[in-house]
Amino acid sequence: MDYKQRVSESFNRQGFMNFIGAKLEKIELGDCEIIVPFSENLTQQHGFFHAGVVATVADNVAGYSAFSLMDSTSSILTVEFKINLVAPAKGDFLIGKAKVIKQGKTLTICQSEVFAGDRENPKLCAVAQVTLMELRNREDQ
Amino acid sequence: MDYKQRVSESFNRQGFMNFIGAKLEKIELGDCEIIVPFSENLTQQHGFFHAGVVATVADNVAGYSAFSLMDSTSSILTVEFKINLVAPAKGDFLIGKAKVIKQGKTLTICQSEVFAGDRENPKLCAVAQVTLMELRNREDQ
Amino acid sequence: MDYKQRVSESFNRQGFMNFIGAKLEKIELGDCEIIVPFSENLTQQHGFFHAGVVATVADNVAGYSAFSLMDSTSSILTVEFKINLVAPAKGDFLIGKAKVIKQGKTLTICQSEVFAGDRENPKLCAVAQVTLMELRNREDQ
Amino acid sequence: MDYKQRVSESFNRQGFMNFIGAKLEKIELGDCEIIVPFSENLTQQHGFFHAGVVATVADNVAGYSAFSLMDSTSSILTVEFKINLVAPAKGDFLIGKAKVIKQGKTLTICQSEVFAGDRENPKLCAVAQVTLMELRNREDQ
Repeated sequence: MDYKQRVSESFNRQGFMNFIGAKLEKIELGDCEIIVPFSENLTQQHGFFHAGVVATVADNVAGYSAFSLMDSTSSILTVEFKINLVAPAKGDFLIGKAKVIKQGKTLTICQSEVFAGDRENPKLCAVAQVTLMELRNREDQ
Repeated sequence: MDYKQRVSESFNRQGFMNFIGAKLEKIELGDCEIIVPFSENLTQQHGFFHAGVVATVADNVAGYSAFSLMDSTSSILTVEFKINLVAPAKGDFLIGKAKVIKQGKTLTICQSEVFAGDRENPKLCAVAQVTLMELRNREDQ
Repeated sequence: MDYKQRVSESFNRQGFMNFIGAKLEKIELGDCEIIVPFSENLTQQHGFFHAGVVATVADNVAGYSAFSLMDSTSSILTVEFKINLVAPAKGDFLIGKAKVIKQGKTLTICQSEVFAGDRENPKLCAVAQVTLMELRNREDQ
Repeated sequence: MDYKQRVSESFNRQGFMNFIGAKLEKIELGDCEIIVPFSENLTQQHGFFHAGVVATVADNVAGYSAFSLMDSTSSILTVEFKINLVAPAKGDFLIGKAKVIKQGKTLTICQSEVFAGDRENPKLCAVAQVTLMELRNREDQ
C-alpha cells in the first residue's frame, strides 16, 4: 500500500474527523493539508471556530505529514503538542498545514500552521509544535 | 450575575461543546469539571477518544476554572496550551479537571488533567498547561 | 551502582550545573530537588534570576527525577519541555522540584515547579511540563 | 534611543548572558541573532552544549526580536516557551535566530531556531515557540 492510501485510510477511520467535517486536501510526503468548512457546530462562545477544532487540525495535520514518511508497517501516536492561538479563527474555512522539522528513528517533530478565512484570503490563526512517535511493526489497523 | 451563572451561560454558548456532548459537571471558584460521554463520533483511528477531544476538554476546563475567578465584566481567551497525552483515552467517559496556578492581572496560568475510563475507575490520560488572558470590560456576549 | 550514585555522578559530569553553582539537594526515587544560590552572574536585565537558569533547573530536576527510576544501563535525553514563568525569580535561592506523571517504556513525562526566595519563604516562580526519553543499553558515560 | 541601542543595552544588563559568553550577532527589526562559543562550562553530561544553554538562547533571541519592535518606553517579559531539542547541540558555536509570528498589543508570539556546529556548517538542534509580553510605560531599566 502506498503512503497516500495509508494516510487516507487512517484518516477515514477517525470518527471525529468525519464528525467535524474535516477533509484531507493534500497528501504529499511530509506535507499534508486538512480543511474544515465552518459550521455552527464548531463554534466557541463568540461564534468563531472553537480552539478545540483548531487544535485538532494542528495536531492531525502534523500527524499525517509525519505518518506519510513512516514505515508502512508502523503506527503513529501524538506524544504532545503546544499551540498558540494568535488570532480569532474566523471565516468559512479552517486550513491546516504542517512541515516536518526532524524525523528520528522513534520521534518526529513537526510545526503546524492553521489559517482561517475564505479560501482566497486565509489568515494565520494558530501555530503549533508537535511531537509524534512511530510505533514500529504495529500497523495502523 | 454570579460566577456560576456566568460560567454556565458562556459554556452553553459554545456550539462545539454541545456538539461533542460535553457537560459542565462542577462549577466552583477556580475549580470546574467537564465530562464527555463516549461516542463513535469522537474517536481516532483505533476507536479511543480523539486527541482533539481530549485537548478540547483540557483547554476548556482550564478556561472556565480561570473564568470563574475573573471580573464579571471580563471575557476570556486562550493564549496557548501544551498537552501531553500520557495514555490511550479509552473508556465510557472523559473527565477534565483544572487548577489555577497563578491568577495575574492579565494572564492566568492553569494546569489541567484529563481522565478516561468509567466513572468508578478513571485513569489519567493527559496533562496540560494553559495560559489564559482576561479581556477586561468586554463582557462575554 | 545504586540510583543515588547514578544520579549524582551524572549530575556531576554536567559542567554547566557546576558553573551555575547548582546542587542536588535531594535524590529519592522519582523525586529529586536542585538548588541554586543567587549570584550576579545568573541575572537578567532587572537583577532577578534569568529565565534561562529557571528553565535549566526545571528541565534538570525533571530529568533526574525520571532518571532515578530508569534502568541502570539506560541513559536519558530531554525530548522537549514547556515552561510558564509565573512570577519574578527573586531571592537568595532557586529551588526546583519535580514529579513523575507517567513512566513509559520509552518516554517519561514529568511536571516541575521552581521556587525563588529565601529558604524559609520560597515562592512559586515557574511550572514546567517535560518529556524525557530513556535510551536503553547506552549507559550514561 | 533607537531600537538597536535599546536592544543592545538591555542585553548587556543581563549578567547571565555575559557569564555564558553570549553575544548579540545581529540586531534588525524583528530579527536578532545570538551566538555562544563552546566552553566546557556550558556542557551537559556527554560534553555537548547543555539544554539549559540552548533554551536560554532560544528564549533570549525571541525576546530581543520581539523587543526590537516594541514601543521605546516598554519593557518585555517572557510569559512561557516550549522547546524541542531535535539533535545533540554539538560543535564550536550555538547560534539562535527568531522570527516574529504575531505582534499583538500585549502579547508577541515568536518561533526560534537554535543551530550548533561550526560557523560554516551549523545544524538545527532546537526549535521553540515563545510567548512574550509587552509591559508599556515601564522602560527597561
